[in-house]
Amino acid sequence: MDTLSVTRAHGGTQHVVSHRSTATGTDMTFSVFVPPQADDGAVCPVIWYLSGLTCTHANVTEKGEYRRACAELGLIFVAPDTSPRGEGVPDDPAYDFGQGAGFYVDATREPFAKHYRMESYIVDELPEVVASAFPVDLARQAITGHSMGGHGALTLALRNPGRFTSVSAFAPIVAPSQVPWGEKAFTGYLGEDRSTWRTHDAVALVEDGARVSEILIDQGSADNFLETELRPHLLAAACSEAGIDCTLRMHPGYDHSYYFISTFMADHLRWHAERLGA
Amino acid sequence: MDTLSVTRAHGGTQHVVSHRSTATGTDMTFSVFVPPQADDGAVCPVIWYLSGLTCTHANVTEKGEYRRACAELGLIFVAPDTSPRGEGVPDDPAYDFGQGAGFYVDATREPFAKHYRMESYIVDELPEVVASAFPVDLARQAITGHSMGGHGALTLALRNPGRFTSVSAFAPIVAPSQVPWGEKAFTGYLGEDRSTWRTHDAVALVEDGARVSEILIDQGSADNFLETELRPHLLAAACSEAGIDCTLRMHPGYDHSYYFISTFMADHLRWHAERLGA
Repeated sequence: MDTLSVTRAHGGTQHVVSHRSTATGTDMTFSVFVPPQADDGAVCPVIWYLSGLTCTHANVTEKGEYRRACAELGLIFVAPDTSPRGEGVPDDPAYDFGQGAGFYVDATREPFAKHYRMESYIVDELPEVVASAFPVDLARQAITGHSMGGHGALTLALRNPGRFTSVSAFAPIVAPSQVPWGEKAFTGYLGEDRSTWRTHDAVALVEDGARVSEILIDQGSADNFLETELRPHLLAAACSEAGIDCTLRMHPGYDHSYYFISTFMADHLRWHAERLGA
Repeated sequence: MDTLSVTRAHGGTQHVVSHRSTATGTDMTFSVFVPPQADDGAVCPVIWYLSGLTCTHANVTEKGEYRRACAELGLIFVAPDTSPRGEGVPDDPAYDFGQGAGFYVDATREPFAKHYRMESYIVDELPEVVASAFPVDLARQAITGHSMGGHGALTLALRNPGRFTSVSAFAPIVAPSQVPWGEKAFTGYLGEDRSTWRTHDAVALVEDGARVSEILIDQGSADNFLETELRPHLLAAACSEAGIDCTLRMHPGYDHSYYFISTFMADHLRWHAERLGA
């Protein structure tokens, strides 16, 4: 594991780390904020933040405004990359497929199956890597994300019952099987058989019986992708049908950017902290 | 005036604006955050944030974490660029001279005298431009800045008694006449006569009788530039001699980055708001 930077911030420490991933077969970079509570030797609950299309760990690390709240609440905040990257990793000229657009699935189609294994990376490998170097309590994990990363947070929570104490999302893709971003990515990574898509689609997972106890979603009403790609009301409806407590908060005037995310970040962190017993 | 973007954030609105500057003879871009208090038609006090070497308006706008506090306190936050830019504007390949490094002076040496008029721009032109489009109360102005911009905030406050209700700085250059960054910039913009330098050097200005009532400075102890370029203790000493209330807070472990600035930003905004009656 290579430490790329260690920086004091808000009383804690912001780390950026690179490591060789066995899941993806590539070097992967992630950031970890460790709050001051860890200075006394305490293990801390951890929240995983999954980023959206085109992002790396850096976007939320620079613009997410999460450190003050994490320092107050005693949360470790981990921001992974959104795909494998580098020479030899298949890519695509589009911004919404290939590098920067892993969609948090394990690809089954060539040429992506070898490296595009983001679900295994996030669920199986990264927690162990982080726990080997940082004082995380893996019995207390929460997950959130933005857009494609909101899809990742929702589907990974629904696919791994009991793993995450709480799940929330900012402007998530909730029904990738029904929108252009998801149709393109799932065709490329998973193939044409739409029955496999349902196991990576939050709305379909809920319809097919997957359960979490509750979900918090914030969504800007002025988000350009709201109706074409995100459609959070589809998840609210599926949750209502399934008896899942889904809070969908619509915010007039807010768009899809980090100005929106940073506005509601502290709210989400407090909501997770209450459920994590932080 | 061209609106480049208008984005909802923290209950207020983040604007990025471009305009033709008469002071610099170039297009200039700045950002303005307008807090929710202005929605009711109130005029709001304004804080000017002057950025450091290599920066534009964008660095603090993305990484400064000022919006939440400004929205709570009812402050308008303006972040100008650090120099004139564009074709026909003299530049230098170094990061610490020319474009991105205006040092908040009106240059007197050629080829810089025509465009590098950042003091006139910040003190005379920009307040009128901002007041023409945003609900600022120009009777209540505060100023702060980082590094080269801390030098700008301190010297512009000392050179314009009564203009700014309060002045603070993050890791400022306090004695440019005595350090490499300042010697290079002042030689280039002002010429070899060091007596003119004293009128743009915070420590020399205080020694020569300029006064503000108080100064707040935060400084990281792990800042790589602390001893070579910044030397805030020189200003603390000059203020002590002059009877100016200068609070210099040293922070172990903190560096020169926006991780440092964002940690103490809300503190500075609250300190200014108390003095502005916000």
